[in-house]
Amino acid sequence: MILASEPEELRNLLDEARRRGDTVGLHPTMGALHGGHEANIAKMAAECDTAAVTIFVNPLQFGPGEDFSSYPRDLEADLSRAERAGAGIVFAPSREAMYPEEPLVSVAVRKLADGLEGRRRPGHFDGVATVVTKLLALAGPCYAYFGEKDYQQLVIVRRLVKDLSLPAVVVACPTVRETDGLALSSRNAYLSPELRRAAPALYCALLAGKRAIDERAEREADPVREEMRAVLLREELVEPDYAEVTDPCTLEPLGKISGEVRLLVAARLGRARLIDNLSAGAGEG
Amino acid sequence: MILASEPEELRNLLDEARRRGDTVGLHPTMGALHGGHEANIAKMAAECDTAAVTIFVNPLQFGPGEDFSSYPRDLEADLSRAERAGAGIVFAPSREAMYPEEPLVSVAVRKLADGLEGRRRPGHFDGVATVVTKLLALAGPCYAYFGEKDYQQLVIVRRLVKDLSLPAVVVACPTVRETDGLALSSRNAYLSPELRRAAPALYCALLAGKRAIDERAEREADPVREEMRAVLLREELVEPDYAEVTDPCTLEPLGKISGEVRLLVAARLGRARLIDNLSAGAGEG
Repeated sequence: MILASEPEELRNLLDEARRRGDTVGLHPTMGALHGGHEANIAKMAAECDTAAVTIFVNPLQFGPGEDFSSYPRDLEADLSRAERAGAGIVFAPSREAMYPEEPLVSVAVRKLADGLEGRRRPGHFDGVATVVTKLLALAGPCYAYFGEKDYQQLVIVRRLVKDLSLPAVVVACPTVRETDGLALSSRNAYLSPELRRAAPALYCALLAGKRAIDERAEREADPVREEMRAVLLREELVEPDYAEVTDPCTLEPLGKISGEVRLLVAARLGRARLIDNLSAGAGEG
Repeated sequence: MILASEPEELRNLLDEARRRGDTVGLHPTMGALHGGHEANIAKMAAECDTAAVTIFVNPLQFGPGEDFSSYPRDLEADLSRAERAGAGIVFAPSREAMYPEEPLVSVAVRKLADGLEGRRRPGHFDGVATVVTKLLALAGPCYAYFGEKDYQQLVIVRRLVKDLSLPAVVVACPTVRETDGLALSSRNAYLSPELRRAAPALYCALLAGKRAIDERAEREADPVREEMRAVLLREELVEPDYAEVTDPCTLEPLGKISGEVRLLVAARLGRARLIDNLSAGAGEG
């Protein structure tokens, strides 16, 4: 496995790979790699000839008062996990290598960032869109792997690639869960044992919403929202933020349910803010 | 010369060229090609193995009340000029081909668009930055040719390419002028014979500013601004907008002059709004 820390190194390595005729995969991460990332990397390594992982805690996507400085960082552990999962290249640039000057040009996401995470974290998705555009521009033509866990991010990246005609194919990676349903996330590291025991409430809420739609054939969105929120509220340590039923492509909140929808929840558990999501209503034909 | 109208066609043609080992040049234009564009294309054709010209009147960079619908369009004439100048490929997409859906993701230019044209044309440079990012993403690694005539645009494109790590080298093309000094511009077509006679005032103003700095060693910017404005005002048909002395890289207005500066003027002549610029203070060593 090759470790690159300069943008030009990454570009040259992937140019070389393409010249050999390789298909190139790219999985942008903020490090603190866990089993979810490992599954994504393994998928990418199985599907692409050259599998590159980027590790960069992007300051642009953290707001004031957010956890940029305390975000878990452990490059050594990340490198072993990436290698074990099948990465051929890891790109781990310094902040100075990525932003030698204060960036004056950014990528702006409008409507798609209005709700959900975007509403709670102003500027977050512009920061994500800017760094993703930059990483994809550096990498060149590639299959770009993004986790479904950050669903709004996935929707935004898909649209970004389309609107800016970036030469990438976005590949969605299914969420990996603990046996009790908690979605793997680097921010789970913030959970005390008590909070960790309460955390599966998010997935339980999503399952309750999905059952309402898929089994009870609920066709109004509000009762589904209420049901998901009620499940979150059953856990005293969970402070629900949102419990939404949206269009899976535009993320617009729905009134009526017909066809596939995306259920999304967010909650605070102590200092951790967790999110999760699930498809429902896709129908069995 | 090959005419492409679909984005994927352009991408495929240039991928093919690169596979042959060609260097690729790209000159984005809004059509209405004139001698200035021809000189740019000829320079590109001399410097690159494959020379591609894009012709697209980009709606995103026109404000309400601006001349989007009346902007001169003549594809047949453009194609002959491009071919004569040495273009190998012309990419002339429809609006629908470039923006099949309302674009939700855009490229935003901050500080660099605060003054000069950006101040008079809110949103203009975000529209330029968005379409340039898209064209460069479609084209892939290339030498990207931009005229110095649109100097603020050139500065913004340079920074855009840097900040977003686009795989392009920006090449500046010197302004081409009529014998009386008027910079060639598609918008000169809006000038009546009287206005056309008054139009060289912009270049005269720049030359007066340059003389003040280079010959009289003026080191204060304000007297230079006043002198340029006075020259513009000598022509009754010219309504001066700005006459600026700025840092050539950041475009910040200067107080003192030391080293190279950029002089920029803008004026309205009837319904035409013309701009021009010139370097001064670069010294002869």
